[in-house]
Amino acid sequence: METADTDGPMQPALLREARRQDVPEIVALLADDAIGAGREGPADDAYYAAFELIATDQRNLVLVAEAGGRIVGTLQLTIIPGLSRHGMLRGQIEGVRVSSDQRGQGLGRAMIERAIEVARGHGCGLVQLTSDKRRPDAVRFYQSLGFTASHEGLKRSLG
Amino acid sequence: METADTDGPMQPALLREARRQDVPEIVALLADDAIGAGREGPADDAYYAAFELIATDQRNLVLVAEAGGRIVGTLQLTIIPGLSRHGMLRGQIEGVRVSSDQRGQGLGRAMIERAIEVARGHGCGLVQLTSDKRRPDAVRFYQSLGFTASHEGLKRSLG
Repeated sequence: METADTDGPMQPALLREARRQDVPEIVALLADDAIGAGREGPADDAYYAAFELIATDQRNLVLVAEAGGRIVGTLQLTIIPGLSRHGMLRGQIEGVRVSSDQRGQGLGRAMIERAIEVARGHGCGLVQLTSDKRRPDAVRFYQSLGFTASHEGLKRSLG
Repeated sequence: METADTDGPMQPALLREARRQDVPEIVALLADDAIGAGREGPADDAYYAAFELIATDQRNLVLVAEAGGRIVGTLQLTIIPGLSRHGMLRGQIEGVRVSSDQRGQGLGRAMIERAIEVARGHGCGLVQLTSDKRRPDAVRFYQSLGFTASHEGLKRSLG
């Protein structure tokens, strides 16, 4: 007899908007990365203050993937109005992380596709993101999702 | 006898926030570019609608450079809240254009420096932008302003 398996490893992750109580798990994910480890955590007031800014801004959204009662993925989507290209809206994706024990199962792909769907719902004509050149696998992952590495991504710290 | 020269070519450009009536000149600047020419103008309702979205959003600003009674430069600054790096705010620069007859005189540099100053005023810890790889001079220009080309800039059209 087959029974419904409601929390096994094959259960697809639920993608939903982040809630305030997710902040510690999101911060843990941001730190769960060779590049992010040195600059993230613990989940102090600064992260909660930033979460409030995002939660109260109609053009910013943090998406999380929940599976087995825990947060296993996160990304942020920002909708950017602009004059270029006949006033085209852009969807920008930042802070993409998938739990190290959940990689290679299509979760990142599902998260990016959901972000693109949300961006389309806002009327965006383009989605964009930057990816650290020290993560060539990530660049190839985005290319496999239809992104073109047409631009240099330049950053300047104001620290 | 020396007299004040108020509109000669050496008069420094005035950097200020864009107004609605600047939209046609801004659109002309966006089109005054080998890459932008095919996808911009004329200044129709779509541009004005986009300008309204920007003007009413506290995290978006279009800056223009005015000289001799005309608009000779433009850029957009977006302040992006985020959880990464202890809730660091980012300033993002888009749509940078300097009139072709005003290039090479430091105007682009002054505009980027002003945008950085505004971003600092908002509390940003980083400024970022992407630059089309087909404009290698632009990439070097941003590097000369302290930007590091550490990331790939990936785009996907939703058209």
